[in-house]
Amino acid sequence: MSTLIVINPNASTTVTDGIDAAIDPLRSFGIPIRCLTLTEGPPGIETQRQADLTIAPMLALAAAQQDAAGYVIACFGDPGLHALRDQTSVPVVGIQEASVMTALTLGQRFGVIAILPASIPRHLRAFAAMGVLDRLAGDRALGLGVADLADEGKSLDAMIATGKRLRDEDGANVLIMGCAGMALYRAPLQEATGLPVVEPTQAAVSMAVGQIRLNLSHNVQRTDHA
Amino acid sequence: MSTLIVINPNASTTVTDGIDAAIDPLRSFGIPIRCLTLTEGPPGIETQRQADLTIAPMLALAAAQQDAAGYVIACFGDPGLHALRDQTSVPVVGIQEASVMTALTLGQRFGVIAILPASIPRHLRAFAAMGVLDRLAGDRALGLGVADLADEGKSLDAMIATGKRLRDEDGANVLIMGCAGMALYRAPLQEATGLPVVEPTQAAVSMAVGQIRLNLSHNVQRTDHA
Amino acid sequence: MSTLIVINPNASTTVTDGIDAAIDPLRSFGIPIRCLTLTEGPPGIETQRQADLTIAPMLALAAAQQDAAGYVIACFGDPGLHALRDQTSVPVVGIQEASVMTALTLGQRFGVIAILPASIPRHLRAFAAMGVLDRLAGDRALGLGVADLADEGKSLDAMIATGKRLRDEDGANVLIMGCAGMALYRAPLQEATGLPVVEPTQAAVSMAVGQIRLNLSHNVQRTDHA
Amino acid sequence: MSTLIVINPNASTTVTDGIDAAIDPLRSFGIPIRCLTLTEGPPGIETQRQADLTIAPMLALAAAQQDAAGYVIACFGDPGLHALRDQTSVPVVGIQEASVMTALTLGQRFGVIAILPASIPRHLRAFAAMGVLDRLAGDRALGLGVADLADEGKSLDAMIATGKRLRDEDGANVLIMGCAGMALYRAPLQEATGLPVVEPTQAAVSMAVGQIRLNLSHNVQRTDHA
Amino acid sequence: MSTLIVINPNASTTVTDGIDAAIDPLRSFGIPIRCLTLTEGPPGIETQRQADLTIAPMLALAAAQQDAAGYVIACFGDPGLHALRDQTSVPVVGIQEASVMTALTLGQRFGVIAILPASIPRHLRAFAAMGVLDRLAGDRALGLGVADLADEGKSLDAMIATGKRLRDEDGANVLIMGCAGMALYRAPLQEATGLPVVEPTQAAVSMAVGQIRLNLSHNVQRTDHA
Amino acid sequence: MSTLIVINPNASTTVTDGIDAAIDPLRSFGIPIRCLTLTEGPPGIETQRQADLTIAPMLALAAAQQDAAGYVIACFGDPGLHALRDQTSVPVVGIQEASVMTALTLGQRFGVIAILPASIPRHLRAFAAMGVLDRLAGDRALGLGVADLADEGKSLDAMIATGKRLRDEDGANVLIMGCAGMALYRAPLQEATGLPVVEPTQAAVSMAVGQIRLNLSHNVQRTDHA
Repeated sequence: MSTLIVINPNASTTVTDGIDAAIDPLRSFGIPIRCLTLTEGPPGIETQRQADLTIAPMLALAAAQQDAAGYVIACFGDPGLHALRDQTSVPVVGIQEASVMTALTLGQRFGVIAILPASIPRHLRAFAAMGVLDRLAGDRALGLGVADLADEGKSLDAMIATGKRLRDEDGANVLIMGCAGMALYRAPLQEATGLPVVEPTQAAVSMAVGQIRLNLSHNVQRTDHA
Repeated sequence: MSTLIVINPNASTTVTDGIDAAIDPLRSFGIPIRCLTLTEGPPGIETQRQADLTIAPMLALAAAQQDAAGYVIACFGDPGLHALRDQTSVPVVGIQEASVMTALTLGQRFGVIAILPASIPRHLRAFAAMGVLDRLAGDRALGLGVADLADEGKSLDAMIATGKRLRDEDGANVLIMGCAGMALYRAPLQEATGLPVVEPTQAAVSMAVGQIRLNLSHNVQRTDHA
Repeated sequence: MSTLIVINPNASTTVTDGIDAAIDPLRSFGIPIRCLTLTEGPPGIETQRQADLTIAPMLALAAAQQDAAGYVIACFGDPGLHALRDQTSVPVVGIQEASVMTALTLGQRFGVIAILPASIPRHLRAFAAMGVLDRLAGDRALGLGVADLADEGKSLDAMIATGKRLRDEDGANVLIMGCAGMALYRAPLQEATGLPVVEPTQAAVSMAVGQIRLNLSHNVQRTDHA
Repeated sequence: MSTLIVINPNASTTVTDGIDAAIDPLRSFGIPIRCLTLTEGPPGIETQRQADLTIAPMLALAAAQQDAAGYVIACFGDPGLHALRDQTSVPVVGIQEASVMTALTLGQRFGVIAILPASIPRHLRAFAAMGVLDRLAGDRALGLGVADLADEGKSLDAMIATGKRLRDEDGANVLIMGCAGMALYRAPLQEATGLPVVEPTQAAVSMAVGQIRLNLSHNVQRTDHA
Repeated sequence: MSTLIVINPNASTTVTDGIDAAIDPLRSFGIPIRCLTLTEGPPGIETQRQADLTIAPMLALAAAQQDAAGYVIACFGDPGLHALRDQTSVPVVGIQEASVMTALTLGQRFGVIAILPASIPRHLRAFAAMGVLDRLAGDRALGLGVADLADEGKSLDAMIATGKRLRDEDGANVLIMGCAGMALYRAPLQEATGLPVVEPTQAAVSMAVGQIRLNLSHNVQRTDHA
Repeated sequence: MSTLIVINPNASTTVTDGIDAAIDPLRSFGIPIRCLTLTEGPPGIETQRQADLTIAPMLALAAAQQDAAGYVIACFGDPGLHALRDQTSVPVVGIQEASVMTALTLGQRFGVIAILPASIPRHLRAFAAMGVLDRLAGDRALGLGVADLADEGKSLDAMIATGKRLRDEDGANVLIMGCAGMALYRAPLQEATGLPVVEPTQAAVSMAVGQIRLNLSHNVQRTDHA
């Protein structure tokens, strides 16, 4: 077991490539990282139904990685996070959970930039299950249609506008990008808002490599025979 | 700026040595780490008054480290955490905060092993300020006098007994060691309780090196001229 | 659309029969109720992984019921609750959610009797996502092995003992049975503890028939073309 | 004991008639329902003082109903809810409590339409006592004077405007009408906002008939000699 | 308006005398204090029903005090607190609310000694409405029958035993006596437990005289024409 | 021990004079009050770093007051509150804590007027540590530069505008002035907003004199040998 496996549970290789680039700085830590696309997944995950339906093939894909030293589930929604923890004893990190835990060390209240408005109730359920709602400043959607999301300029503009509303109207001290594969916007978003911005796949991979190196896992009892 | 500075705010070089050993596995990540002892600090920090009085010399010690790429404050209580964040733009991680954020990814409810009972109200104030009280299973003290704390066998026995009470009576799924410099007990504690155990200096250094590598800090506006 | 569909997501027809009997008093309300067994499900659901893996076949089974006026998901854990809500516009009620909402009207703090200890972290995540943790007195497992669970007398004894601990040590004013198909124990448990006891499939079917009759659903916009 | 008693604690028979009409669909469940007006009550309940002063005559009116199988207190504020529970062993449901419990199954965050701004602190105390504040999106008043409240068109317009603010500014996924006797606005409000709308007397009667049929009550010990 | 009116809403003059003695040290502050017994009240208040039924006569008694500069409602349960605030513009302090606010400045978590177990759900509703549940260590009843409560020695012994359980099992740092008229036990309880003990009528009168002197009231708009 | 010591931890005698005037009505209670300026403090406290650095000299100044019957720390942020409680057994009251506890008796949700925006995260950490976030309506800064803060008319205008936003947009029922030394604005702010306004040094001194008179302190065990 030697490699951190990052699974993008949607079928978009563009997103997987974005994740791969985002986490590149963490490769210098010396733990091999392999990014996989769930080909059975939908092009993008927009509903809880879509998210839940990725779990079965994701678990199978994860089980097939013989050299897994740990896993990152790279969808903001962490589908199958606890199911995969039931299946393995190596560290399993979700990008939503990791981005929140990281943001909590960077500002008193975090704001979340959601891609689509329908994601917000899902996010709120997850933040409540994490027990961190008192630290949430707000969760706001970009307000873009699907076509506009493909337009890099419009997307960045909407992210900046949304980030400023989270800062000014909701009192956010730190921002979380509520999606994977958009790390290229992190620096300009940070510069435009003056707030630290957490890119969730970076946050998750950073936590995962630390847990691997420290031999720290959720399932101690089964550590030796994962 | 190239080195992660870990400051032990008490005057015990034994504790600093323990920290130094605990974080050794993370040195392979390639970021130099230097552990310092606050010689102006007390032999051990037992009260909020002692903790608060370490802040001024700790800030001075931190400011004197010309090559600081980030800081870890290595006292479970995170004295001066926000003050140091006011003073610098590089990442600043407290071991209490980092251990909690790490534990939240390893179990639904965390238990804390406090060295002394008087620390518990301080812990509770801190966990409340973090907004994570709903995830706390319990915080229990070892029940040892100062003399017994120096006895390695008695300390480990008390840690295991306390960990089991947190597991069985309070429902903890993960344990946090509420002190620095005791990493040697982590493996046997984990084995005896069957629960993942977070050693806080390891958790903090792991988060700090990630934040340094990702250029992620609480203070974006001052990033370029810290 | 005329029938309330109750889906038991495990493969045990004994459990389905128990559900069928439990909800019998509510048949007099005049809405037909059909209880189904998910043959693709496991014999019993013990882990989050097992629960998540029932979602895909459960959604298919639900979609195949042409006359569905509403659905109840009859596993304490509500697997696929929000996924099914994404799939349909008729009312969808989970037995865990409904039992909690009912219990909150019967006592200030509710206690939960879990069949297995490993379920408790899952319950806590769900109660947190519901935002009701401040009303939770405690969640305790029966402490029986699988063999003993098949013994009716031992099960009832364990339920009563667990209910009394929830009442006396945790301060519960109302109890929830954390499983489906055990309604026969409700009356003796209530009598032995002196506390109201909520059987979750009864609570869920009661809420569901009311929502059907009142034309009340989560998805107003799609009401006419589910 | 055979009849569900619904008590309108204000003296307005118009309101009682509105309640009677609202709950009509639930009569098909086969449990007789009788709606009563508290003639000693004020014309409308605007303050906590007015609410509290209805309790004594309400308790007397309730005690005089020999055939009561259960009670609904039909004022959004649930005056005397726990006092009546002390007085009887049959189910007692408050419309405020029941509407919240119902709304929690229909959307992640609920918005409340208050008739008058002075009611909001009362609502917040009640929601806090219920332990559901984390699910509250917002509570907003119609902003109408008493004269305008008698104007059906103005009232509906104000309800729709308030519902849209709760949806758009506060993030509500489900709405609760914070009053009794206005069920006729439910359908147009639902249509205009696209959100599910809970009419509280409907929600309460639905819960009450279920509890009656299931023989489920807050006071088990006194069930047989109410 | 010159006198602080303290109303004991039960009919026991023994309790009123106890209150009168308890607050004696605060008479030196120069504001006249008059303690009244609600003769229409029950001998003791044990249920929410009894508490609610004191409100109407209590409001009348309060209204009859022409020289009222402020009011204290001296029942741990604060019956009619908000109703009286609706009726007057001078300060109104409840002993339950005031004791909690005072305790929160004396220890991180407070424990409550309830006279009877049936009071605890009422207390919890009130603490939740105050929003302070995260600071509550525990609420435990004395475990005495009514006869034993009249025995001073047995009562004190039970208070001390209960206080020690709140301290040792629940982690209380400060205790609140959950009743009026028992101030004589405060000093020995404090001595025996080593914890600060808040006597609620003392806490309430202290807050009330301060609010009177500072001209601080809940109802600014009506200050001049109460 | 006979005098209440009020320490202004910044070096501004203007602020100390303002505090001295603010608490004047409470001198009639008969307990001598002495207001001190911490000459080692900064001109004003704007950051957590500045706040923390006042603790050491503040503790020394406090220790030098031989006749202290109690202390008030008069900076909205309560620097060194728990450290001073570790150092002495007489009552120690912080103006932030006391103003919140007082506000909680005057309205369901409190709004805070912060002088500078950077203070808000500090306030939120403190309110969270107090466990009262569910009662917070909002915390808003005046939006003035340092120069304008010296202009009495501009300051009052900004306070009124901020107070009205807290009332109208955030739903505050009571306001807290988030600073010491500005009591002269209390009456006009109250009049302009129609909300009760808590001046924190008044609230703290009021609580402190009560605790002194009642012999009520955080540290019972050391009462006799402070």
